[in-house]
Order: sequence, then C-alpha cells, then structure tokens
Amino acid sequence: MLPHLLRIDAAHVVMLARRGILAPEPAARLLSLNRELAHRLASGEELFPPPPSHRGLYLLYEGEYISRLGGEVGGAAHVARSRNDINATVTRMRLRPALAEVLRQGMLLASQLERLGVAHAQTLMSAFTHLQPAQPATFGHYLGGVLSELLRTLDWIAGAYDTLNRCPMGAAAGVGTSFPIDTTIVAELLGFESPLGNSLDAVGSRDYVVQVLSGLALLGTLLTRMSADLQTWASSAYGFLGWPDELVSTSSIMPQKRNAFVLENIRGQAVKATGFLMNTLMGLKSTSFTNSVEVSSEATSPVWPALEAARTALVLMELLMSNVIVQPEPMRRFLVGQDTTMTALADHLVARHGLAFRTAHDVVGRLVNLKREPELTPQAARGLLEPLLATTLGREVSLDEAELAQVLEPEGCVRAAAYGGGPAPEAVRAHLATLGQARERLQQRVQGWKARLEAADEALAAASAAGVSSTA
Amino acid sequence: MLPHLLRIDAAHVVMLARRGILAPEPAARLLSLNRELAHRLASGEELFPPPPSHRGLYLLYEGEYISRLGGEVGGAAHVARSRNDINATVTRMRLRPALAEVLRQGMLLASQLERLGVAHAQTLMSAFTHLQPAQPATFGHYLGGVLSELLRTLDWIAGAYDTLNRCPMGAAAGVGTSFPIDTTIVAELLGFESPLGNSLDAVGSRDYVVQVLSGLALLGTLLTRMSADLQTWASSAYGFLGWPDELVSTSSIMPQKRNAFVLENIRGQAVKATGFLMNTLMGLKSTSFTNSVEVSSEATSPVWPALEAARTALVLMELLMSNVIVQPEPMRRFLVGQDTTMTALADHLVARHGLAFRTAHDVVGRLVNLKREPELTPQAARGLLEPLLATTLGREVSLDEAELAQVLEPEGCVRAAAYGGGPAPEAVRAHLATLGQARERLQQRVQGWKARLEAADEALAAASAAGVSSTA
Amino acid sequence: MLPHLLRIDAAHVVMLARRGILAPEPAARLLSLNRELAHRLASGEELFPPPPSHRGLYLLYEGEYISRLGGEVGGAAHVARSRNDINATVTRMRLRPALAEVLRQGMLLASQLERLGVAHAQTLMSAFTHLQPAQPATFGHYLGGVLSELLRTLDWIAGAYDTLNRCPMGAAAGVGTSFPIDTTIVAELLGFESPLGNSLDAVGSRDYVVQVLSGLALLGTLLTRMSADLQTWASSAYGFLGWPDELVSTSSIMPQKRNAFVLENIRGQAVKATGFLMNTLMGLKSTSFTNSVEVSSEATSPVWPALEAARTALVLMELLMSNVIVQPEPMRRFLVGQDTTMTALADHLVARHGLAFRTAHDVVGRLVNLKREPELTPQAARGLLEPLLATTLGREVSLDEAELAQVLEPEGCVRAAAYGGGPAPEAVRAHLATLGQARERLQQRVQGWKARLEAADEALAAASAAGVSSTA
Amino acid sequence: MLPHLLRIDAAHVVMLARRGILAPEPAARLLSLNRELAHRLASGEELFPPPPSHRGLYLLYEGEYISRLGGEVGGAAHVARSRNDINATVTRMRLRPALAEVLRQGMLLASQLERLGVAHAQTLMSAFTHLQPAQPATFGHYLGGVLSELLRTLDWIAGAYDTLNRCPMGAAAGVGTSFPIDTTIVAELLGFESPLGNSLDAVGSRDYVVQVLSGLALLGTLLTRMSADLQTWASSAYGFLGWPDELVSTSSIMPQKRNAFVLENIRGQAVKATGFLMNTLMGLKSTSFTNSVEVSSEATSPVWPALEAARTALVLMELLMSNVIVQPEPMRRFLVGQDTTMTALADHLVARHGLAFRTAHDVVGRLVNLKREPELTPQAARGLLEPLLATTLGREVSLDEAELAQVLEPEGCVRAAAYGGGPAPEAVRAHLATLGQARERLQQRVQGWKARLEAADEALAAASAAGVSSTA
Repeated sequence: MLPHLLRIDAAHVVMLARRGILAPEPAARLLSLNRELAHRLASGEELFPPPPSHRGLYLLYEGEYISRLGGEVGGAAHVARSRNDINATVTRMRLRPALAEVLRQGMLLASQLERLGVAHAQTLMSAFTHLQPAQPATFGHYLGGVLSELLRTLDWIAGAYDTLNRCPMGAAAGVGTSFPIDTTIVAELLGFESPLGNSLDAVGSRDYVVQVLSGLALLGTLLTRMSADLQTWASSAYGFLGWPDELVSTSSIMPQKRNAFVLENIRGQAVKATGFLMNTLMGLKSTSFTNSVEVSSEATSPVWPALEAARTALVLMELLMSNVIVQPEPMRRFLVGQDTTMTALADHLVARHGLAFRTAHDVVGRLVNLKREPELTPQAARGLLEPLLATTLGREVSLDEAELAQVLEPEGCVRAAAYGGGPAPEAVRAHLATLGQARERLQQRVQGWKARLEAADEALAAASAAGVSSTA
Repeated sequence: MLPHLLRIDAAHVVMLARRGILAPEPAARLLSLNRELAHRLASGEELFPPPPSHRGLYLLYEGEYISRLGGEVGGAAHVARSRNDINATVTRMRLRPALAEVLRQGMLLASQLERLGVAHAQTLMSAFTHLQPAQPATFGHYLGGVLSELLRTLDWIAGAYDTLNRCPMGAAAGVGTSFPIDTTIVAELLGFESPLGNSLDAVGSRDYVVQVLSGLALLGTLLTRMSADLQTWASSAYGFLGWPDELVSTSSIMPQKRNAFVLENIRGQAVKATGFLMNTLMGLKSTSFTNSVEVSSEATSPVWPALEAARTALVLMELLMSNVIVQPEPMRRFLVGQDTTMTALADHLVARHGLAFRTAHDVVGRLVNLKREPELTPQAARGLLEPLLATTLGREVSLDEAELAQVLEPEGCVRAAAYGGGPAPEAVRAHLATLGQARERLQQRVQGWKARLEAADEALAAASAAGVSSTA
Repeated sequence: MLPHLLRIDAAHVVMLARRGILAPEPAARLLSLNRELAHRLASGEELFPPPPSHRGLYLLYEGEYISRLGGEVGGAAHVARSRNDINATVTRMRLRPALAEVLRQGMLLASQLERLGVAHAQTLMSAFTHLQPAQPATFGHYLGGVLSELLRTLDWIAGAYDTLNRCPMGAAAGVGTSFPIDTTIVAELLGFESPLGNSLDAVGSRDYVVQVLSGLALLGTLLTRMSADLQTWASSAYGFLGWPDELVSTSSIMPQKRNAFVLENIRGQAVKATGFLMNTLMGLKSTSFTNSVEVSSEATSPVWPALEAARTALVLMELLMSNVIVQPEPMRRFLVGQDTTMTALADHLVARHGLAFRTAHDVVGRLVNLKREPELTPQAARGLLEPLLATTLGREVSLDEAELAQVLEPEGCVRAAAYGGGPAPEAVRAHLATLGQARERLQQRVQGWKARLEAADEALAAASAAGVSSTA
Repeated sequence: MLPHLLRIDAAHVVMLARRGILAPEPAARLLSLNRELAHRLASGEELFPPPPSHRGLYLLYEGEYISRLGGEVGGAAHVARSRNDINATVTRMRLRPALAEVLRQGMLLASQLERLGVAHAQTLMSAFTHLQPAQPATFGHYLGGVLSELLRTLDWIAGAYDTLNRCPMGAAAGVGTSFPIDTTIVAELLGFESPLGNSLDAVGSRDYVVQVLSGLALLGTLLTRMSADLQTWASSAYGFLGWPDELVSTSSIMPQKRNAFVLENIRGQAVKATGFLMNTLMGLKSTSFTNSVEVSSEATSPVWPALEAARTALVLMELLMSNVIVQPEPMRRFLVGQDTTMTALADHLVARHGLAFRTAHDVVGRLVNLKREPELTPQAARGLLEPLLATTLGREVSLDEAELAQVLEPEGCVRAAAYGGGPAPEAVRAHLATLGQARERLQQRVQGWKARLEAADEALAAASAAGVSSTA
C-alpha cells in the first residue's frame, strides 16, 4: 500500500498548498521528501521495517517525515485527514488495477472463445439437455452461448469500477474537516472520477467490495458450468475434446490415465469468490454505519484473494481453450443414432405437409418407438411414417425421400436452424461478430481507465515538482 | 405465470401470422381464444385445475387449445418454440414488475431519509467510531451517509433490469428453429429491449437472477447496519430515538418494556437475500450450460422469496422512518462531556497558532488526561493548555477564551465542518439535494420501464384484435 | 405450534400444582380446559382466528383462558414463565419429529442402497477418477462408498437431537424466576432429557439450529454428488442406468427424449440447506446473546424449509433407487477397451515377477502407447511386454498367457481387489453388512426418541387427569 | 506435509514387511532411509526443492528413494497405495493437531469465562432484551450463559475428530488392492482409530472437513454475539467494562478516543469460517463421488485458514477476558431507574397477595406509567399501587413497605431468582461448577488424542527400528 500512500500524501500536500492551508516552503520540503521516498521505493528499497500490526504502517510513515523534517514540517501534512479516509482511499486505489487485470484476463478468454467459435461454426456437435443428446448443433454455437454470458458478466464487473472510483479523501475520521480543503483537486490528482459527498459514507461504506465479489462469484459459476461441460466431453465416453500431454496428468498408479485435472482446478478456484462474498456480506452485517476495523479491514480483506482466485481460474481456462484439440469425428458420430433430428422431422411435417406441431410431435414419437436401427434412413422413415400419418390424419400423405434425407442429416438440420439464435453457421458467425464488438467496447473502457490513471500520475508528478520550483 | 403465458402465446401467434408461418384464419381463431382466456383470467376465474406437477401447466394449457379448437388449429401455435424458451421468458416477465416494486419501495425509503435528513440537518448528534463518541455531527449527516449508499445500491439493482429485459423466445429447446420467425416482433410485443442472439444462452443462462440477488444481498447489509445503529440509539442508554406505541412491543412478563423489535424483523428479513443468493450460486455450480430443471427451476426459485423479503424489510424501515420520534435533547446532552470537540481544538491550535497537527494532537491528548470534569470550559482549557504549550513548544502561546468557547461548543464545530463531506448544515442540505436528483433520475427510469410495458401490452392487444379483423 | 403450546401449558400447571405454587382447584380447572382445547384441536377444530402477527398467538391463547375461567384462574398459569422460554421450547419440540422424519427418510434410502449394493456386488462397472475410467470395480462397491458417508452423516445429524432435547422452560424472560419451580418435572413431562442450567442460554442460544442445518447441508452435498454420478451414467453415452417411463420426462419438442430430470430436482432441493444455513449464520451474527426476535424467530425460521427440502431430496432419491434399472451389459462393455486393468497388470509384474512397482508402472505405460487395439488380448500383452521387460530389466522374463488372461479380465481383477476396502464381492458384502448394523443402531436410536416422547405424552395426560381427580 | 508422508511411508513398509509382501532386506533399507530423512527434516533441513506444482511433492519424494536405493528397492514401497490414499491420509493427519489446538484455545477461553463468572456471580448487571434493560441479573450469569453454548460447541467440534480419525491407507487409487495388506496395522501405527471399510469412500469423502468448518462457523457466531455485547457495554454510554491501555487503541486524529477495536478483529476473524464453509460446500457440489483434485485439494483447502482464523479469534477473546476491567458501579447504577424490578414486583403481588399474574402485570404496567421519578421508592410504590389494586380487584390490599423495599432492590431480586437457571449467585456458581466438569471431560478427551498419537509415534519408531534389526 506504500506507493498509494505516497501518492495520496503528495496530492494532499499539493492541495493544501494550493489552498493556502500549508505555506509554500514546508509544502515544498514535504513534497521533496515524498519524491525521494517514492524514488527509493521504486528502486526496490524497503523504506521501513514491517510494522508490528496492521494499524502501524501509517504511523511509521508519519514518523519518518517527522524524524527527517522535524515535527513542525514533518507533521504538518496531517491536517484535514485521518487514517480512516486514507485507508478507504488506498483500498479503492489498490482495487483499480486488480479489477482491470481480472477484466483483461476475462477478455483474453473471450477472444479465445470468439476465435474458437468462428473456427468451429461448422463443427457438428449434439446440443444436450439433461445430459441427453437433444438436437444437432455445433461446437461454435455452444461457445457463442457461453461467450454471451461471459461478456455480460465482465460488463457487470466493470460497473463496479464506477462505484469505487470516487475519492474519500477529506472525510478525515468520518466528519470531514473545518480546513477549507478542495476535495476535487485531490480526487483528480489521484485519478478518481470525483470526491464523495458525505464523509460518513466515504469512510463507512464498502459496497463496491460486494459489487466486485458478486461479479466474481457469478463469473465463477459460469466457469464451473463451462468446465463441467468440457470435462464431460473430454471423457472417454465422448472423446470430443482433448489436450496435449503437458496439460493432462497421468496417474501414479494407473499407467493408462490422461486426466484433464486442470478443469478441476478451474472449478476449485472459480467457486472461491462465492465463499469470500459470503465472508464479506456476513462481515458487514449489523456493523455500525461508520468507520471500523470490522468493515474497513476485516470485511474488506476477502476481496484480494477472491480477485487472485478469479484471475487464476481465467488464466487456466484461457490456457485450456488456447490448446484444446477438438475431435470433429467423434462429435459427428455421436449425433448419428441418437435421434437428434426428430424435432427437425416433426418441423418438416408441419412446414411441408401442414400438420399441427403437436400432431407431428406425436407421430414422430411413435416412429421413434417403432424403428429398429439406431440410425434412421430416409427409406425407413418413409416406410414407417406414411402408415402412421394415414392412421392419424385419416388421409394419405406422400413423403419425399430426398427431402427426408436432408431433414434427417445433421448438416441440413444445422444449416436450417438459422432463426432464434440457432446454430446455422452464418448466424453463429454474425452473432460472434456482434459479441466481438461488445468485447472491444469493454476493452476500450478498461484502457480508458488505465490512460486516466497514467495521466493523473503525470499531473501529480508535475504538481509535486512545480510546488518545489515555485518556492525556489 | 398464466397471464404471462397468454401474452407470450398471443405475441407468438401474431408473429407467426405476420411471417406467414401460420395462416390468417387459424391465427385469428387462436388469438380469439387467447383473448377469451385472458378475459376470464382477469375476471378471477380459475382456468384449469392445478397441474399435477410443475412441468404440467404448459401442457394443460395447450390441451385446452386443442380441445376447443381441434388438434390442427389448437396445436398449430407450438412451432418454433418449446417449454424451455417459454419458461425462460416467463421468468424474465415475472421479474420485471417484482424488481420495479422493490425499487419503488427503496425509493420511498430514500424519500423519507431525504426528508428526515433535511429536517435534522441541524440536530446535533455525536458521530461514532467503534461505538465510541467521536466528533460532533448531526442526525441529518448520518442519514445523508446511509442514503448515499442506498441510492447507489438501488441503481446497481436497477442495472439488472437491462440484463433481464431481453427476450428468449425463438430459442425453442436451445437450438433455435428452422421456421423463418422474427424474434424482434415477439420481443417488442412483450416489452423487451431486444431478442437474445444465441439460443443456448437464451435458455441456459440465469445470470440476471444472480445480479438481482446480489443487489438485494448488498441492500440487506445496509439495512442491517442502519437498523443496528437505530436500535443502539433507541436503547435506554442513549434515548436518541423512539417510536409511537403501535410500533414498539411490550413484554408478556416485563411491564415496563418498550421494545423496538421491528428493527430485528428488518434485520431478519434483510439477511435472507444472502442465503438465497448462496442457494442460487450453489445451484448453478457445475450445471451444464444449457436448459435444465436444476437451473431454470431450482436455482432460479430463490429469487422470489428474496424479493419478497427485501420488500418487507424496506416497507418496515420506511414505516419506522416515517414515524420516528427524534429526541434532540438527549442527542445534544450526550455530546457534552464526551470530549468530542478535541479534534476541533487540535485543529484550532494548528490553524490559529501554527502548530503542526501531530504536535497539537499530542498536546490535546495530554490535556484530556489532565482535565478533571467531563465538560471542558474555555477557562479550564486555557488554564491547562497554555503551560502544556509552553513546555512543548518552548515558547509562550496566548489563547483566546472566546475563540476556545466557539471551538469547544458542538454547534460551532459542526458549522465549521463544511469541507470533505462534513456535517455543516448547508453542506448536508446541498448534498441531500444532489441525492434527491439522483433518486428522481432513478424514479424516471423505473417509470420508463412501466410505461414501456404498458405500451407493449396495448400494442399486443391491438395486434391480436387486428389479426381477427383481417380475417373477418 | 398450538399442540405444543397446550402440552407446555399442561406440564407447567401440573408442576406448579405439585410445587404448591398453584392451588389444586384452579390447577384442575386450567388442566380441564387444556384437555378440552387439546381434544377440540385434535378433532380438527380451529381454536382461534389466525393472530394478526407472529407475536400474537400466545396472547390470544391466554385470552381464551381468561375469558373462559376469569382473570384470577385463567391468568394464573402465567407465573414463572414468559413468551421467551415458551417460544424456545416450542421450537425444540417442533424440531424433534421433523428431525426424526428426515432421519427416517435417510434410513429408507440407506436400506435401498444396502439392498442394491448387495444385489450388485458382482455387477462389474468401471471406477472413475476425473471422469475417466480408472480400474474395474462394481456398482455395489460404488453404492457401498456412498452409503458409508450417508450413514456417518445421518449419525452426525442425529447428534443434534442430543443438543436440542433440553428444556428451556423456567428461564422465563431470560433470568429465571423466584417462584420455587421444579424444571425437571416440566422437562420430563415434555419428553426432554433435562432442563437447561442457565436461563440466558435457554432463551438466547439456537446452536442446535446451526447443527441441524449443517447436517442437512452436508447431506445435501452427498446427494448432489451421487445424483451427478447417476445422471452421467444414465446418459446415452454410458447407458448404465435407466428408469421406467413414469420417472423420466419427455420433451415438449423433442419426441425422442427421455430425461432423468428428477436427479436435477434432487440436486436443486439438496443445495437448499446450504443457503438456509448461510441465512441462519448471518442472522445470528452480532446479535446480543439473549432473547430477541432476530434470533428466536428470524434466524431460526430457515430450519423448517431446509428440513422439508432435505426430506424431499431424500424421498426422490429413494424413489429413484427403488426403481433404477441397472444395465450390466453396457457397464461391462465399457470396461473393455478402456485399459482399466493396466494397474492390475503392473501389480501382477510386481507380485509374480518381482519388479519394483515404479518400474512395472513405466513398462505398462509404454505398453499402453504401443498397443493398437482397444482391447488387449493376453497374446498381444505377452508379445509386447516380453521385449519391453528385457530392455528395461536387462534380463528375460517369461510371461504366462493364462495368468495374463486372468489379470486382464475385469472379473479376475475385481475378485482379487479384496484388500483396502476394494470391490471384491465378498469384501463389499461384508462391509455392507457392517453398514447395515450401523443403520440398525441408528434406527433404534431414533425409535428410542419416539418411544420416549410417547411415554412422556402418556405421563402428561395421566398427570393432567390426576390433577383433576385429586381436587374432586 | 512431509513429516506425515514419512510416517505413512514407514508404517506402510513395516506392514508390507510383516505381511511378507516386501522382503526383510529391502524393507530394512527403505526404513533406514526413511529414518534418515525424518531425522534430517527434524533438524530443519530442507529435503527437496519446492515442487513445481502441488501434485509434485510425492513424486519428488519417491524419486529420492529411487536415486538413493535404486529402482528395485527405492520403488518397491509403492505397491498397494497411490497418491490418492496418501493424500487423503495426510489431510486427516494434519487436521488432528490443528483441531486439538483450536479446542485447546477454546478451553482456555472457557476457563477464563468460568473464573470470571465465579468472580462476578454477585456483580449486579441488568439483563437485556432487544438492547433494553430487562430485569436484574449479574455479569457472572451472562458469562455462564455464553459459556454453556461455548462448551456445547467445543464438544460438537470435537465430534469431528471421531469422523476424521479413520485411516484411508490401502484404498490406493479408490479401488483397494489385490496385495494381501493389513490396513489395521497401518491405521494403528499412524494413531488412527481404524481403517475405513470402502476404498471409494476413503479417497472420495471429505465430510469431516464440512464437520470441522460447521463447528468453527457456529463457534464464530457465538464469538460475534459475545463481542457485540462486550463492545456495547464497553462503550461510553454504558461504561460497564474496559481494558488496559495496551488493549485499546487511540485515534490518529481524535486525541480522546479509546477504542476496543480488538473486538472488531474478533468478529472479523470469527466470521471467516462461514465463508470458508460455503466455499467447501460449493466446492463439493456435484463432484463425482471419487477422488478428484476438485475435492481432495480445492474443496478441502479452506479448512486450514478457517482453523487459523478461529484460533486467532479465540486467542484474542481469551486475551480480552483475561484483562477485562469490570466496573461494578456503573453496572449497578444502570439498573436503578430503569424499572428492571417491575417483573419482581408483579411476581410479589402474585406470590404474596394472590393476584393472577396477568392482573399483576397490568397493574404494574399502569404503575410504571403513573410514577414520576426514575427510581421507585417503596413509599411511592405503596402509594400508587394500593389505589390501583383497590380499583382493579374491588378489594383493599395492604402492602408492606419493608417487603416492597426488598422486592424493588436489585440485590434482593437477584438473590431470589434461584430457579429456572436464574442469576441467584449460588445457582450461578453451582452451574459454573457443572460446566467446569464438562470442560475437564473435554480436556481429558483431547489429551487422550494427544497421548494416543504419541504412543503411535513410539510404536512406529520401534517397528521401524525392529525391521532393521531383524534383518541384521
């Protein structure tokens, strides 16, 4: 937290000097020492021995100023502020790059899913419900579905940035100050959007911590869902997917095993945010709405390991998706003999022969029970259906085997499913392109944060230096 | 869910007819029966016996159409749709008014806090940290702090509406359809912002449920914090607040008791969302990313009681805040003798006599230990401080008792604390006015939702009727 | 809660009379009315209109006594007690049968697993790790594993009964009483093990609620794990299991589907306890250690729906296990060609030919890479292994094809795995018999609870009647 | 985990040698190297470089054996075992001392509460409900209440030891082994109660982790409740309690503050177990019932920081309770004028003058409204009550002022409250003595665990050495 403390200190002194609360000369000396400490810290030097407890760092830091500049000057910066507002400000400053980093990893994964989705827009795979094969779809269509929720969730997480990027400085111990400070100057020099308007809110609220943790918890559930699907499809019963040797493990006892255990690590890391969210919510419960160790330190602390776990889960999933080996053959083979085109057959009876859907559904249901072979040929379909239709409708219906062939073939099914967000390749590609634009908008937003923080850092450095020269 | 089902049915049939998938005549007959059922339902009639299980309602409903219109017409609407997309759509439709209602209650509470805050902008009360009196502030300042977080949280909750107000219709069982439907027509007739772009996402994702529950969980922690503060202040040790007889309870055994037990109900209801959030997150974990009972029904169901509990907590808190009896006298009396103006005294030594803050802090700390009476008079302050300052600074400092009087008096302190979001009355009032504008923006947003749904209902009714006339 | 209230009332009056705190005549009149009310209630009569709020039932009930017997007699029972201890007692009384019922359902499931385990002690099935086939085992072995944890968990849940079956009566509002009551009499007449020793603990603690909920949460995770396995094995990719038509559902759109959706309901119901546990833990956090609405009512209430959800999950799982159709053929077929006997082969090289296990593991690992056919014949194994062994060991090793045949055949493997809790049929049967004894011990324990409650009810009825006759 | 790995290895080799699966000579060489490594480890030497990943330590360890003893001997111990059963065994071994340590800290706190309870059995303090003063009680009575739940919870936590102290060795990768091992020998040499009976259960279940975490979560809620009460009473509005300077903190800005912030750390640490419990429950959900990284590593890992946080919370609470400064004067003063003896007054009217309790309650309720001074003198009580009683009862009741004095005085009230677990000093002391015995029973139980582990360690060392000598 020390680099942030130094930034806060510099911004505060610059503001005090500009407002005439601090005279130019002590301000210059404080800023000069501040720059020296920042420089030493940047060079990897340890400025202080580790403080005896978590409350101690600030006082150590203040002690350094006093021992170097004397009590009058060294202690002069500690007006119109307190450990409470500084602590609240540091937490927000630390969260900014950590949140941006999780989003960056999330967008790397999004890019991979997009790329894979385009590559596999025609890779036939069964859609599943209740773990049973349902209708023909593609691997690209599945990826597009997951990616849709991923991008929405990243956007939701990014929303927390707007909440947290407000500056508590000036709130002091929770009741503001009588010194005529200008909180907007400090906020701007530290890259915040604005100061907060109520000093109790500034030191007492941590709603942004809950916002971040909620976002990570939701992201986590998506990653567990995705990794459960991938592990099913990578299992030997399916054989749809695999990874190179370095991403699977063998067994210490079973020489034949190739375990996609990384998916289990992903799930393990992905659920951590939920536990940490519960920790924070419980930690906040029935605390007084003001500054307290319970809120500012204890209930806030889970956000750091939660961010780290979410980042790990994203890194691992991105690694797996960059290296996944897709097996189109087993995917297609699985479709055949699983009756996944029966809905398409019923739809055909509706669209081409004017049946009501429920009637068509019933007729095809009876066909499924009558047929003997796993795979239904057009000939067999016609042979079984025509009598069924005659009985049901009380009229003869003549089916065309060529048409039936197209309907019963998964490729044709998928090509036709171009409506309602279905897996027709061009529909999937168009949707992925739309998602790609959404990802780029988010990327620009996150880059905008970074740019703003860099600009603030430069403005602060300039202001700190200017403070000196004006008194030279 | 039946009214929503009827709406969906009407919109779907209108769309099928417009797209030529359904002929005008059966479409008109379906819509006519739809309007009849809607009318009977609106008159309080029970259309069907309760279905034997949760999966049954849709099939009962379809059965009614078939028995009334025959299989050809009655079953004709069931193309390009499935229970999966209908179920997903109904959930979103049910959530819209429920979410708006919670926000409406939240804004009623916000209005009360705003009104009370203005009324008590000058009602002196100690600020507290760690349950100990800290510095002079006002009850209005406290309320402004809580209101700040309340409005941010309501805004965050409202954000979930944007996620959920997308239409899943057309996704059918998760792979879209080959019928050339137009999902935009259905989305608009049902008041949605747009259709969803991937059919698997449409039936498989419930991220908006987590978004809603997270918002309610955060709101809940704020209500527990606020009610913990109110209960402390309503306790006989403080006596800052109270309620009329009908809002407190007596004891079945202790004749003298007046218990503000409603605050305990508020906390009890407020924490429920956290448990339900955990239920949903756990329910989603490792489910396949597709439609399933586990996701669409089981993991989604906690959102309803959570919304109801949050609403109850808000209603109760609004009731308490509308009826609270504030006792300015005990509030002010508590400030005196608690040394809450010592920070102001230190600030005075800095601002008026040029001490460094840390020096001033130390001197005042020693003064607190030396003084004998709870309340510090200007005379006593001067008598004790001048020698302390002489020793510490090595120079004589002459203090002005009139100035000290102003500094040591809570009113003066509060008036001065006009910076950094402090409790100076005009600063609090200005900030409350800003919050009031934020509340109004949110109100307009929620009213906009309602207006849009009403317009969609009208458009749907007109389209349904037009469908008939075009075939008459 | 009314039947419990009547019991408490009767036991309290009997005790007051025995201790001479209440004279025989009013005691007899109170008990007579109590019996009348109990009789009317048992006949299905509604004694009172529903109270306006949750705090009202007790006062309504007292009002009935006063209106029937006059204030002097009707109000006389309300000494040495309060709504607080009565409320705490009712909760414990309601929990007793509800907990016994969940355990009863749990033991029904345990019986089924035991029966199925014995029936399938020889039904060959692959063991899995990381969803990949591992080594030959049996379905009975799997069921024995699950049953082991199920019985431990039921025992753990049963432990909560010992905590909760203590009587709070006499604690009054939390500070006991000066009336010379005998809490042991009341405890015994209500079937409790003993009274509680501290009145604050009696009204303020709800640890048993957390104990019950924790037990249900753990039970829930086991049921989700089991149902995830069953759903995998019931999927068409495995085909190991199935259910009759009435336990699977079809699709409204896919005529061929047979979905084991009940497993998803089980998971949905099974995870509810975790959410409710979180609700209770959060509800208890930072409450004062005393009676409060927040603790006694709000934080306690989640236990009821949690018990109901756990019961539902158990009922459904028992239903599925009673009706499961096991398919030994696909189970066995799956083992072949999945290299699941490679560990047995390595073990054979160790035991029969003196290789170190790590060497044997490496050699067999190379064999797996070399072989061309999914299924490894003894001939092929010998042909590939002998050269590998010669190279690795620098000596000739002559393998016996008959021995290899036994090792490579799953039946032989399983028969041999008789140590360390392995799947050898007689080992599994012996272990299931041990588990059966554990289940019977638990059954006797739960029946003991029931017997004790019935005996207490009889003793209370007798004491109530005797109270009358002694004054006749 | 290395010391545990070495123990497991030694026990396994001893067993293999005893069963003739390993010849004496290689067994002796393996055990000799094992003792050497254990010795070097005990001397603080780092045996291996840190493994590249969490799966690597075991293989590094095995590699050391092979490089030192050659493949034939060094790899020979790896029969009838796997990383899976070793990993499961190590987790259980690590949990044993960690659980004992938390219980030890819990019992230290229990001792303090007991000691303080006895010391303050006569220290008058109001009992509270809903934060309002209720009836006279003592600080010792409060402590006895908290201690009651503390000891029950420690007992519940200790119950997890019985679940976890079973040995998984021999389960190998989850299907046991065909080597004729004796799992009882290994279990005994490692200090376990018994081996587990099903190999899948042995590697796949982690129910004991949930048991431990549930216990810690419950313990945590108790500590938050206790610390909330203590913080209330230490606040300046009450002034009942305090701590020496080194246990309170000052403010960086408010010179007069003395904050009992350690209570906030306690609450912060105490709630962590709940978050970790949720992490584990969610981590287990829908995992396959078998060995997996997700279960054995990811879902298990939260138990370690949870134990550490619980220990910290207990250490801090014990520290506070050892150093608490109780202020009997403010405690007693608070009772006066708060009408806390009104229930006693009503009881007196019942016991001495034959009123029904409800009548007495109403009369005293009216008295409370009529009286003018906070403190009610016997004279004033008599003056107000006699007319009220005459009106209510329609008969004259003559009250005795001396008796009233005794009833209205808190000391008399408390002395009388000797029934139902009330605060009468001798009743509290007797109950604390009973709790002391319960604590001692638990202490002996935990010491029994320790003794058993030490005995097993000695037996293992002896067996390891004997293995060598028998081959010498």
